[in-house]
Amino acid sequence: MKVVPVIISGGAGSRLWPASRQSHPKPFLKVADGRSLIQHTVLRAISLKDVAELVAVTSRDHLFLTKDDFDELSPAVPPHTFLLEPEGRDTAAAVAAAVIHANATQGPDAILCVFPADHMIGDLAAFTNVMGRAIEHARQGLIATLGIRPSRPDTAFGYIEADGEKVIRFVEKPDLETAKAYLASGRFFWNAGIFCFKSQTMLDAMAAHCPAVLEAVAASYEHGHANNNGESDRIELSSEHFALAPRISLDHAVMEKTRNLAVVPCEMAWNDIGSWNAMAELTPADGRGNRIRGDVHTVDTADSYISSDKRVIGTVGVSDLVIVDSPDALLVASRDRVQDVKKLFEGLKASGHEAHLLHSTVHRPWGTYTVLEEGDRFKIKRIEVKPGRRLSLQMHHHRSEHWVVVSGSAKVVNGDEELFLATNQSTYIPCGHKHRLENPGKIDLVIIEVQSGDYLGEDDIVRFDDVYGRA
Amino acid sequence: MKVVPVIISGGAGSRLWPASRQSHPKPFLKVADGRSLIQHTVLRAISLKDVAELVAVTSRDHLFLTKDDFDELSPAVPPHTFLLEPEGRDTAAAVAAAVIHANATQGPDAILCVFPADHMIGDLAAFTNVMGRAIEHARQGLIATLGIRPSRPDTAFGYIEADGEKVIRFVEKPDLETAKAYLASGRFFWNAGIFCFKSQTMLDAMAAHCPAVLEAVAASYEHGHANNNGESDRIELSSEHFALAPRISLDHAVMEKTRNLAVVPCEMAWNDIGSWNAMAELTPADGRGNRIRGDVHTVDTADSYISSDKRVIGTVGVSDLVIVDSPDALLVASRDRVQDVKKLFEGLKASGHEAHLLHSTVHRPWGTYTVLEEGDRFKIKRIEVKPGRRLSLQMHHHRSEHWVVVSGSAKVVNGDEELFLATNQSTYIPCGHKHRLENPGKIDLVIIEVQSGDYLGEDDIVRFDDVYGRA
Repeated sequence: MKVVPVIISGGAGSRLWPASRQSHPKPFLKVADGRSLIQHTVLRAISLKDVAELVAVTSRDHLFLTKDDFDELSPAVPPHTFLLEPEGRDTAAAVAAAVIHANATQGPDAILCVFPADHMIGDLAAFTNVMGRAIEHARQGLIATLGIRPSRPDTAFGYIEADGEKVIRFVEKPDLETAKAYLASGRFFWNAGIFCFKSQTMLDAMAAHCPAVLEAVAASYEHGHANNNGESDRIELSSEHFALAPRISLDHAVMEKTRNLAVVPCEMAWNDIGSWNAMAELTPADGRGNRIRGDVHTVDTADSYISSDKRVIGTVGVSDLVIVDSPDALLVASRDRVQDVKKLFEGLKASGHEAHLLHSTVHRPWGTYTVLEEGDRFKIKRIEVKPGRRLSLQMHHHRSEHWVVVSGSAKVVNGDEELFLATNQSTYIPCGHKHRLENPGKIDLVIIEVQSGDYLGEDDIVRFDDVYGRA
Repeated sequence: MKVVPVIISGGAGSRLWPASRQSHPKPFLKVADGRSLIQHTVLRAISLKDVAELVAVTSRDHLFLTKDDFDELSPAVPPHTFLLEPEGRDTAAAVAAAVIHANATQGPDAILCVFPADHMIGDLAAFTNVMGRAIEHARQGLIATLGIRPSRPDTAFGYIEADGEKVIRFVEKPDLETAKAYLASGRFFWNAGIFCFKSQTMLDAMAAHCPAVLEAVAASYEHGHANNNGESDRIELSSEHFALAPRISLDHAVMEKTRNLAVVPCEMAWNDIGSWNAMAELTPADGRGNRIRGDVHTVDTADSYISSDKRVIGTVGVSDLVIVDSPDALLVASRDRVQDVKKLFEGLKASGHEAHLLHSTVHRPWGTYTVLEEGDRFKIKRIEVKPGRRLSLQMHHHRSEHWVVVSGSAKVVNGDEELFLATNQSTYIPCGHKHRLENPGKIDLVIIEVQSGDYLGEDDIVRFDDVYGRA
């Protein structure tokens, strides 16, 4: 048997601002153990038996973020492929891409297990059992889905009505009264978006129920290309064809139409991290109902989630708050209004505020940079370059750069010179000099860059040569 | 006539954490116009007629902070003397020091006007009128005090009962019922701690009512010394003698005992900035009752004070909060619990948390430094050196320092070399090299220092020569 876990990323996670940003969405959020949601999803996926290949469907804008998170887990991660979407076109198209790929590489009997990249599951033993059952259904030619036994009348989820393992119907997010009736009935389960099927089964179902999705995605896969500087772990779907796929969810496109279904009811401490309240649940509460991360000092504070990144937070006489601190942005919200963090995010976006888009740490193909401080005539960055990676050969018209190596070693092109810098050494790149930074070593290179000059915008850059195709 | 305004600083302002810290107390807090409370106090004081000399009584730990704030106002500031207390011994001792000094320099008829350093007064025309009246009483040989007409039954102030301008009695902070009765009577006024008298009048009153204070402080003044590297603007009171002064307020020591009194009732938009609510009143409210400073975005937020330093703050569905952000610390408090910020401060202090003591910007005799970032093996500071000032000649065993000049020019001793750095240039001080940084120019020198090494504590410093007596 060949099992192919498929991890699907999508959505900005605007309800989880300021931890999530448009360029750094929910799957990349780190939970208390320091691992991201997508890393937890990968670890769960590869704990399944008989994994032949892992597939991640993600926006091409998030390839390097995804790859970074995978790389941190290697060598645990088995062979894997990144299927890069040129744009988001909902889950039917994303799943179609994975099915077409798995069918091509592992054949029509390969069993795909589709997991959203941004859920947490607390009870891994239960998860393993349940997935075994779902895979069993898949082997019989059914499309199996998990039904999470509801613990509260939640209106944020779609439900599945079931009779044993037989699906009666899929239903949309209900209102509160309906959700209460669902909960009381014992026949309704949360639709977690986790599916299990043979590639041939899904190809047939899509051909029958959503042929336009299947055709467009098949063409985009066929015309897709590696565009990977010789790396073979990714396929960039052709944008021209992918854009023709109807925007529709797998539920609407297939699940509500096919009769070839099974549901596996389960309880496995599932959490879709849909809001800060869901994130809070991952941190245990203290005796006053506070869930605290970081350097937090409280006076008469209760029933609040307080998360500090680096700074000290003091609270006095408050309750039922969500306080989330990050290097460049702070959220203070009422606990019963966390859904409306989305409104705050949309407002920031509408006003063009950079805080909706970027963190102070920005991911690049070669590593990351973090703006530590900006002031009159200076900007300071911490630059981390991965082993073997290098930045483009570049030049700035308006700024000089001073580089101090604080960890690792650097190979530097500075005008006509080439030099090596060890930890503790520094160099100076005058305005107008062509320069390049490279990490020739085996450990991360960390430098502090102090830029000085009259104009310090990111757009003052002329790239002469770039291994990542950005010149 | 010779008028001597006396500005008295004291107290940490622990209710105004995180803006105030033990090493950066309330008088140095900046209000919305960018000026500090003590600067506003100085400007009010020197607006009086016939000012012969200005006296500031302050802790010797805060001399350079005080001097910085005075220097920023120069050349507006007239001749002035800093009387440096070796420790705080309440207001009777502080006023005694000022009286002894003014008597020595300006004679027995000098008229002292005592102002706490940390109040705001909104109606300057009323202030001028009222002080004119108080000075008139002082010329007649009375000790005059201002009585602020109360606008609410506040329990945080002492009250003065008056019949016209005649003082009936001083009373301690009342309970709420009593305060309401005081307010209703129209005969009670807030005791603002602003006093006016001839030096001879107060010397006589202290000799009669608190001779131990007067004797101890007179001895500490006599044995005080300039300790000022040739600068003549300060007198450091001898700690040995000052320590003998009983700890007592001027109210208890003199005002409650003498009959030689007058009170000037007044309304002048007085605000003692006793809490974040008082600070909030200096920022106008918007239509939803929010008072906002900085980059703040709100969704359904009302009746809150939200102050951001640099970062973006987003709020959702909250009301009646005080949110104060600073580079290294954040406060979130309920508006009706701001008095208990003191408890938070005390807790931080008791646990030895640095955030009770220091801001990320630290004042030194030569200027300031701000820790921008600390990480594994590196620390980054922004260092500002005032024109003509220099740091000690020093050496570090465990760290190298890289200096980038981003504004102004620097004279640098680096081992046996001496060099000049212009804006945009940089240099490198290896571990173990004796070095010194000096600003030979006419404008502030700003450098970014990147420290690298295994140990980066402030205590890894050997000072060889220090113009500020710290070697």
